[in-house]
Amino acid sequence: PDLEAGTAALERQNQLTKPRGSLGRLEELAQWIATWQGSSTPEMRRPRISVFAGNHGIAARGVSAYPSEVTAQMVQNFINGGGAVNQLSEAADADLRVYELDLDRPTRDFTTGPAMTEEGCARAMAYGMMAVEQGLHVVCLGEMGIANTTSAAALCTALFGGEPSDWVGPGTGVDARGLARKAETIAAGLEANPGALTDPLEALRCLGGYELAAIAGAVAAARLARTPVVLDGYACTAAAAVLAKLDPRALDHCIVAHRSAEPGHALLLEKLGKQPLFDFGMRLGEGSGAALAIPILKAAVACHTGMATFAEAGVSGQAH
Amino acid sequence: PDLEAGTAALERQNQLTKPRGSLGRLEELAQWIATWQGSSTPEMRRPRISVFAGNHGIAARGVSAYPSEVTAQMVQNFINGGGAVNQLSEAADADLRVYELDLDRPTRDFTTGPAMTEEGCARAMAYGMMAVEQGLHVVCLGEMGIANTTSAAALCTALFGGEPSDWVGPGTGVDARGLARKAETIAAGLEANPGALTDPLEALRCLGGYELAAIAGAVAAARLARTPVVLDGYACTAAAAVLAKLDPRALDHCIVAHRSAEPGHALLLEKLGKQPLFDFGMRLGEGSGAALAIPILKAAVACHTGMATFAEAGVSGQAH
Repeated sequence: PDLEAGTAALERQNQLTKPRGSLGRLEELAQWIATWQGSSTPEMRRPRISVFAGNHGIAARGVSAYPSEVTAQMVQNFINGGGAVNQLSEAADADLRVYELDLDRPTRDFTTGPAMTEEGCARAMAYGMMAVEQGLHVVCLGEMGIANTTSAAALCTALFGGEPSDWVGPGTGVDARGLARKAETIAAGLEANPGALTDPLEALRCLGGYELAAIAGAVAAARLARTPVVLDGYACTAAAAVLAKLDPRALDHCIVAHRSAEPGHALLLEKLGKQPLFDFGMRLGEGSGAALAIPILKAAVACHTGMATFAEAGVSGQAH
Repeated sequence: PDLEAGTAALERQNQLTKPRGSLGRLEELAQWIATWQGSSTPEMRRPRISVFAGNHGIAARGVSAYPSEVTAQMVQNFINGGGAVNQLSEAADADLRVYELDLDRPTRDFTTGPAMTEEGCARAMAYGMMAVEQGLHVVCLGEMGIANTTSAAALCTALFGGEPSDWVGPGTGVDARGLARKAETIAAGLEANPGALTDPLEALRCLGGYELAAIAGAVAAARLARTPVVLDGYACTAAAAVLAKLDPRALDHCIVAHRSAEPGHALLLEKLGKQPLFDFGMRLGEGSGAALAIPILKAAVACHTGMATFAEAGVSGQAH
């Protein structure tokens, strides 16, 4: 992070025609973007939304309200422009990319052993890293993968402790029996993968999924590229949390767009010390919440760079 | 309101390629806009931001951190394109109009009697009503007026009871002595205007200001035009609250964009039963928060009208 650029951005904020601090979080966002872009006049013309899709072996255990073929069907829906994230991307004038990770070959059911081989997990992470190009002004991350809120809850249980029941929620809409199945699946997964409890990357490999590994890779690559990142909901934030467990500063270049309606997300945000931008009760995933943050980032940058200073506008300062 | 259009909008929402309700507040917003626009496929191509500016006699009492000439200077700043609301308007591709209400003739200091004559208040309301044209897809309201958070707090005390100290806050940034002066000014204003306590419109006339009367007029006119309204922060919401005291349903066509950092706003939102869209700690006024709601409304409408249905996309429904 370029702290000098951040300080210069703050100095500019304090000269703009408004009481100091009166744009609240918009001012913080402008300074945060300046710090990571390394410029006191940051830009937001090139926002990217990257959605990673993967399939999960545990889907066969009845942990989702939808069958696993919906992952590929929804990817096709994105390609055809029919998903929520397509509309949100277009409304934000952003560039949307959808990445399929071997949808025909789901991860292994993690109640029987690691979800991914070491090579499979590493390849998915590398795939996510390559999705971050130079010159993007922000990267918004999202996921699609039937059964992945169970995978996310398993990851969170391994990374942060507590009971599986603390971390599971209705996801796409399971009933009480489905919720119990999710918790049982996670308990079995933790028992089958003892190494997941002591090593965050091993937790990702054993309990995560290809799309979640890709997200972790993208977050890491964005850090190297000094590109600000917007995380979406529960599954996306859980994937990024792997890096936070490796290094508490690893997500300083990330904000979380929203607090998802999935109950585990609020708990996860608390563990990460992240204050989301908004809470609209959304629980769709596919990058939808992250995409909705783009106009807010654009607004923050527009105020920061476009407003007149008190001197330029000839506006009187405070009376005393 | 067209409840049939709202019901048709909800039916459409339930066919779109997402779990029901998973877009949370975006779905509610789409339905709300449909209800007021009277169409199950609402539009958001013509958003208007209307900012009303007025001056206040009580500014001479040291209730603001800024001198009263700043009202006119900021209006000039808006005309020159240098204000926060200009950048937010441009970012949202909205049409911004700024209305000056006799800035050279401030209202009377309300500690000595009614702020406005009956004719003056009525003219300001009519001026606000005329600002609402047919065919707008939403009207976002804002204000500029040095000392108007004191006027807003006086209005709220008269309308909802409690002590002046419950309703005052730092505004543009007064210190503890300034805060005490605000509360004293309000107490004196209530004593000098006993009629304000029993009649909401009389409260507006006696304790409000021209820009606040114009906002009340605009809210009423938008209701007649079935145009959805976005209210901004404390002063703007206080002006609209006059109508809510006359009729509890009078603000059904209004949402409040954000919870302002001005502490009285949270209390006022509670009294009105309004859940704001976001809380960014903003306290600038000038319609800035309301303008920032436009991209969210556009996103809600874009998802509602642009997403594919399960049938169109060939996506499987719930497994059971």
